[in-house]
Amino acid sequence: MKIALGQINPTIGDFAGNRQLILTATAAAEQRGAELAIFPELALVGYPPRDLLERTAFLDAAAASLAALTDALATSRTAVIVGFPERLPASSSGRPVANSAALIDGGRVVHVVRKALLPTYDVFDEWRYFEPATDIAPVAWRGRRLGISICEDIWNDADFWPHPLYRRDPIEALVQQGADVIVNLSASPYTLDKRHLRPRMLAATASKWRRPLAFVNQVGGQDDLVFDGASMALDARGNVIARGAELDVDLVVADVDIDRSAAGGGAPLAPELSDERSALAALVLGTRDYARRCGFSQALLGLSGGIDSALVACIAARALGPRQVLGVAMPSRYSSPGSITDAEALARALDIDFTVIPIEAMFAAYLDALAPALGAFAPGRPPDVAAAAADLTEQNLQARVRGAVLMALSNRQDRLLLTTGNKSEVATGYCTLYGDMAGGLAVISDVPKTLVYRLAREVNVDHPVIPESTLHKPPSAELRPNQTDQDSLPPYDVLDAILEAHLVENLDAPALVARGFAPAVVADVVRRVRNSEYKRRQMPPGLKITGKAFGPGRRYPIARAPEPAPE
Amino acid sequence: MKIALGQINPTIGDFAGNRQLILTATAAAEQRGAELAIFPELALVGYPPRDLLERTAFLDAAAASLAALTDALATSRTAVIVGFPERLPASSSGRPVANSAALIDGGRVVHVVRKALLPTYDVFDEWRYFEPATDIAPVAWRGRRLGISICEDIWNDADFWPHPLYRRDPIEALVQQGADVIVNLSASPYTLDKRHLRPRMLAATASKWRRPLAFVNQVGGQDDLVFDGASMALDARGNVIARGAELDVDLVVADVDIDRSAAGGGAPLAPELSDERSALAALVLGTRDYARRCGFSQALLGLSGGIDSALVACIAARALGPRQVLGVAMPSRYSSPGSITDAEALARALDIDFTVIPIEAMFAAYLDALAPALGAFAPGRPPDVAAAAADLTEQNLQARVRGAVLMALSNRQDRLLLTTGNKSEVATGYCTLYGDMAGGLAVISDVPKTLVYRLAREVNVDHPVIPESTLHKPPSAELRPNQTDQDSLPPYDVLDAILEAHLVENLDAPALVARGFAPAVVADVVRRVRNSEYKRRQMPPGLKITGKAFGPGRRYPIARAPEPAPE
Repeated sequence: MKIALGQINPTIGDFAGNRQLILTATAAAEQRGAELAIFPELALVGYPPRDLLERTAFLDAAAASLAALTDALATSRTAVIVGFPERLPASSSGRPVANSAALIDGGRVVHVVRKALLPTYDVFDEWRYFEPATDIAPVAWRGRRLGISICEDIWNDADFWPHPLYRRDPIEALVQQGADVIVNLSASPYTLDKRHLRPRMLAATASKWRRPLAFVNQVGGQDDLVFDGASMALDARGNVIARGAELDVDLVVADVDIDRSAAGGGAPLAPELSDERSALAALVLGTRDYARRCGFSQALLGLSGGIDSALVACIAARALGPRQVLGVAMPSRYSSPGSITDAEALARALDIDFTVIPIEAMFAAYLDALAPALGAFAPGRPPDVAAAAADLTEQNLQARVRGAVLMALSNRQDRLLLTTGNKSEVATGYCTLYGDMAGGLAVISDVPKTLVYRLAREVNVDHPVIPESTLHKPPSAELRPNQTDQDSLPPYDVLDAILEAHLVENLDAPALVARGFAPAVVADVVRRVRNSEYKRRQMPPGLKITGKAFGPGRRYPIARAPEPAPE
Repeated sequence: MKIALGQINPTIGDFAGNRQLILTATAAAEQRGAELAIFPELALVGYPPRDLLERTAFLDAAAASLAALTDALATSRTAVIVGFPERLPASSSGRPVANSAALIDGGRVVHVVRKALLPTYDVFDEWRYFEPATDIAPVAWRGRRLGISICEDIWNDADFWPHPLYRRDPIEALVQQGADVIVNLSASPYTLDKRHLRPRMLAATASKWRRPLAFVNQVGGQDDLVFDGASMALDARGNVIARGAELDVDLVVADVDIDRSAAGGGAPLAPELSDERSALAALVLGTRDYARRCGFSQALLGLSGGIDSALVACIAARALGPRQVLGVAMPSRYSSPGSITDAEALARALDIDFTVIPIEAMFAAYLDALAPALGAFAPGRPPDVAAAAADLTEQNLQARVRGAVLMALSNRQDRLLLTTGNKSEVATGYCTLYGDMAGGLAVISDVPKTLVYRLAREVNVDHPVIPESTLHKPPSAELRPNQTDQDSLPPYDVLDAILEAHLVENLDAPALVARGFAPAVVADVVRRVRNSEYKRRQMPPGLKITGKAFGPGRRYPIARAPEPAPE
């Protein structure tokens, strides 16, 4: 049986557009002789629709779109399986919607299958919306028994996972009831780790049950999330017989009855990207889709001459085209001479627009206007604290002047403002709210500083655009004389290792110390992460590429007792 | 049986402090002859702990705190039921934690009961963390059968609700197995509607099952949420025999065996507040707890002379004490003369600190510095659009200068900056990101403008502090000459009615028009709500007092197809 994997990039709520993507792909699949074309989870509406699922009009439009799709497929010889939000009968108790798959054949919906396992960890909220399947069974169709599953349904194998999250395994249930092929419709977000884990898990599942497996995944950026596609078909031994592009739309047709070991089986495999190339591609795709889906064709960003803004400029140029990107250097009294020349060199090499707006006059106007008030209202402070606080206040002011300048350009020129803070900074609060955190999209807020360097070097492999001095100078916010990041933070290789263990592995201070990190450094980093929760609550969406990003996937109270608990 | 309702205000993660609140209340309950003292859901750790529940160290500390509490109660004649996060055996599949209640008697945990119904709507995420109870049964204790339930467990009665959200009713299960008293531990957030609904629901439950009912609720502010207490004991006819304070800590002792109709039954009822007074009390409590739990004793805000900032100033003065609050007037070239005199009159009447910082010099410095760039990069625009955009850019700049001024004072003086935007503005995006939206807490972001007026008038009933001219002048942002809000927005009574139907009832444009609102107005409001999603993503926590607030309880994609769907 030839199955087409329709790796499409739907837009949330664009019913007509998404339907057209499905129809176009199905027509192409039909031409290539596919008996069945499968599309991602909730492909009819785009994933994740979030609280749009609570709107009657949205569910009505989805139902109308499914009917229109079914009609339009009346003469298609290729049947279709597509994900859609299924309204449940009003008479039943429970949530009013299921996360379902429709099998459309001959102009009719011939079967509907519901998702059984609803993820609620990290970025997922599916119990918020959906009622899970109670019955799990394969679908008899054209002499076969299709084991149709949706995303999470295939992620609970008791042999693959040391501690399954759910009490039942839908794939086991499908196979035990005679499914002879496993189909999985997914909207599985990209992470650097998951791109390696997912093929292993799928191969283990196919080979364990000795069933061919067709997995189709959404591609594209949806706010914080990037979906990477990388759809695949596997034979019953767990060999990959066909694979969709990583981080791009694709249509793959594979004969799932053919063993890879047999000659002529399957389509050629797409090349695998390195981690650095895949991370860059994910950030480019996430930036491009966020910009266009928010109605922007142009972007801007502050260029400091440092590595973070250089990397973001490269990503933006790839995402939107260099001529659509404006870099703005905003030197202050504390800027090094290299900061402008490096920024300009980068802009020239990238062929993006570039302008310089010194902030001195505005900064001075604030200091003037605030002098009486800043003096007048802190009479009780000891002088050294006052000096330090004034210092930080002044540093933040510079960052906020830059934020306001960039926002004025964004407003006036209808450009999306990209922030340039990396994960190490955002984690430790080494950034200014309404200053360098101002913008519509945080492009690299989930990229640790050490990975920023790796990605920057990878960018330069193709075409050396980032100046060597940017790559090699000590990181500095340049908000006071001779400042470097390491005045305030541990070395970035140490910091990033602690942050990975603290944020992604959820280790607390004692466990971090047990792992060999210095107690004082651990205490400082943990305190910084905790105390900057309020800043991150107000950050723009940031593209997720690791196992734990800031944003909807990490939900911490702001107001709480200090850590460690005062016992 | 005398039951004490321990209506405490725990701090998330303050294990020692929360334990002490429980011990102190239990000692008082013992003195008053209570056999049993009950405490809120997760009272040992504070609700909602959110992703702290994913940290091993947090769960370890909770377990240690439960052990310490149990030891400390060794000689207490009053038994205790307290909510805590229960770590489940590592060998079982499913989530590793339950939302549980421990019955502590004689220095031992003699029973543990798990929550069965896990809410995932609005602000709740309980499937993210907890494994639900599989078995539901009453607890035999001192010759009784206690029907112990946790919060949501009591909210699924098939007779009370037209469409129960869950398939089972734990209260029915408890009663059918012989429970002779219903106990409910809650952390049920305040809303204006729920304060009326909750007593009705509890009375219906008690009278339906003919069982006395003891309900204890957390009190206090936790980020966006305010918990209102209002614990109560009801007799088996559904009469309220005792009630805890609204929006304050309390300890209530009630004999649940006594009918209210019989003489001497129960404690006297606490007075019921009007909606306006309860909303004010909720906002005061939420502001006070957020400030102190974030380590602030002082606050500041911009005073425009308008009603929103006047109301927030009154709330802040009540929450922190007037001498802890600084009001800042920041006049511009567009400010009316009344804006400063009204602000100053308010500050004087409230006895808060007051200062004036004109923004003209800073605003002019931006216009100067930006003139070349703003001109240079939009060559292709038609002149009228450019003029309008320049106008908006200029308006936003003024707001951002004010935001930066206030943040500088906040940084320097260690004051919590309170934003003053109301729900009508925040909903329609009639506010400036990094400008008037800048701050640590959005005090009235869930208060529609029409309710702002009601609350302001209520404030003046006690002591007329808000100037009459503030109450009566047409609302204006004063960001351009002769501007009023109604240049851009429909009249607030119309706007608020549409917003209530659109945001809280989830009605879309066709349904709103069917309800009688003008189609053009509806289209404009719906478009405004949709297009300002990105602003709200970056707003600070805002105190929730209605059925649907912005923040964690409302989760919309930013990048999506325009609404209505392009069919």
